[in-house]
Amino acid sequence: MNKQLLFVKRPEGEADASTWSLETNAIPEIKEGEVLIQQHYVSLDPAMRGWMNEGKSYIAPMEIGSVMRSGSVGQVIKANNHPDFKEGDYVAGYAGVQQYIATDGQGFYKVDPKLAPLPMYIGTLGMPGMTAYFGITEVGKVKEGDVVLVSGAAGAVGSIVGQVAKIKGCRVVGIAGGPDKCKYVVDELGFDACIDYKNEDVKERLKEECPKGLDIYFDNVGGEILDAALGRLRMHARIVICGAISQYNNKTKMRGPSNYLSLLVNRASMTGMVVFDYQDRYAEGAKILGGWMAQGKLKSREDVYEGIENFPETYKRLFSGDKKGKLVLKVIED
Amino acid sequence: MNKQLLFVKRPEGEADASTWSLETNAIPEIKEGEVLIQQHYVSLDPAMRGWMNEGKSYIAPMEIGSVMRSGSVGQVIKANNHPDFKEGDYVAGYAGVQQYIATDGQGFYKVDPKLAPLPMYIGTLGMPGMTAYFGITEVGKVKEGDVVLVSGAAGAVGSIVGQVAKIKGCRVVGIAGGPDKCKYVVDELGFDACIDYKNEDVKERLKEECPKGLDIYFDNVGGEILDAALGRLRMHARIVICGAISQYNNKTKMRGPSNYLSLLVNRASMTGMVVFDYQDRYAEGAKILGGWMAQGKLKSREDVYEGIENFPETYKRLFSGDKKGKLVLKVIED
Repeated sequence: MNKQLLFVKRPEGEADASTWSLETNAIPEIKEGEVLIQQHYVSLDPAMRGWMNEGKSYIAPMEIGSVMRSGSVGQVIKANNHPDFKEGDYVAGYAGVQQYIATDGQGFYKVDPKLAPLPMYIGTLGMPGMTAYFGITEVGKVKEGDVVLVSGAAGAVGSIVGQVAKIKGCRVVGIAGGPDKCKYVVDELGFDACIDYKNEDVKERLKEECPKGLDIYFDNVGGEILDAALGRLRMHARIVICGAISQYNNKTKMRGPSNYLSLLVNRASMTGMVVFDYQDRYAEGAKILGGWMAQGKLKSREDVYEGIENFPETYKRLFSGDKKGKLVLKVIED
Repeated sequence: MNKQLLFVKRPEGEADASTWSLETNAIPEIKEGEVLIQQHYVSLDPAMRGWMNEGKSYIAPMEIGSVMRSGSVGQVIKANNHPDFKEGDYVAGYAGVQQYIATDGQGFYKVDPKLAPLPMYIGTLGMPGMTAYFGITEVGKVKEGDVVLVSGAAGAVGSIVGQVAKIKGCRVVGIAGGPDKCKYVVDELGFDACIDYKNEDVKERLKEECPKGLDIYFDNVGGEILDAALGRLRMHARIVICGAISQYNNKTKMRGPSNYLSLLVNRASMTGMVVFDYQDRYAEGAKILGGWMAQGKLKSREDVYEGIENFPETYKRLFSGDKKGKLVLKVIED
């Protein structure tokens, strides 16, 4: 049987158990030119909250009653004359939170479990890694000597952003929640410093850690931290707007950055990015990140939970911060 | 005698008569290598409000007791072996709100009253014109076919921005206060449409006038209108942050653009500009704008008031909007 998590109610504010419904259906049949994929892992990402909203965004909103959208990685267990995929192939794509999918393979690509563990293909070698890599290089235009600030520094995207910036020769300061995460960011990931926004005064600590200001701020969180970063910009600084996790569960109006005129004072820019725009270059990005990992220059951590039925409570960890690295759910049953 | 307007008190909120003090002093003596300039006109600009604040900005804050900073144009009436300027030359620069200045000439440049009336050298052929030209071309990266929105459309900067965009082959929509200004913007300046923010629903009218959205928003005002524009961005749109007149007199915190995540959704950017960065290219800008004026493609309007003692009440027109075009004060007495 195929356990599927359906999106059944648009949340106001935080999503909760009533947002989804777990259903059990027959494993789908495949047609000529299709494959059946057994899913191993699904990805949990803050962006999911945005997909639940109605209205125009960078991607169509999820429809009520559809399978919960997510990145995923699994194995082809049946193929019916598919031009690219055969039985036994491992593939990643956006198959959603379910155990099986019948598909013509569009949007899926092969991955090699011998080169990296499967969860990494929906983490550092998947969307979060590509977001980090193209965000800091193409949008942030990172260069040697830059002072780079990264929020969500212990998370799937931020951890890679900071490490790439270190590799590029920057001074890198992270922001994360709690002393454990900050320790991880500095000791394990090699950031120069990490500010604990839950226990420290971000504005004051920014002054200490970046006395001459910031060249790049890679923003995953929005809210007060974005304002604090705006207050520390150097001339011609670049802010990469990747997300705003602090605002996703707002029931009231989004909080705008009241310090935005710092863009004018410092001739700085704030630019939004969506990873899908770099789809043609994922192979290039994965090769570079994979190479650094092989050389031990880049570390990746996946926090893997188990059981499709545990999706709602695992999802909460995205916003509570109770996770270490990329959040992944194992949906295949042993 | 030399009438000088001194900046004597930092305002909270709006500047008023108590902000300045009019003093009468002896006309200064000039030393070897200096010139004495008799000022004809001084420029009034919304940026002045920012200069009155303490703290870091794109230019040093004005010091209490100093002559009120302003752009100006006047005539050299005495020269003592100056390498560049001689008696009779007309020069523009930043001489402040006073009738005479003794200077070594740094920051001043010659202008020709036969080519254009003097007030135009502190308007369309001065800072506001340069701001408009380099803002829309270099920061906005305007190109044929773009849909361009300009706030402060009847003002010194906005009126030029929109006309330049028309010359470049864009659809141009202005935003201005009141039916008279809107009529001027469309009938005289040739914008395709103008939204009256005092009497119309900007969001609704934007939908009507820009059904497919905006490629460029040139922002002189900030506040609600910036949010409305953010809500109408097209993919890869550019917002040029030139000013935020709606927020300059705030006693409370600046209002940030709550719709800023539209930058992410639309892979758009918001970039601040300060005209001084283009100082090396003013001659180029003035030549291009002057050429278009000579061809009748570009119109310029200066609203000239008289009497240095009327500076405080004239200044108020910047924020009340009670002016037509570039605000200028004649300080020379007949």
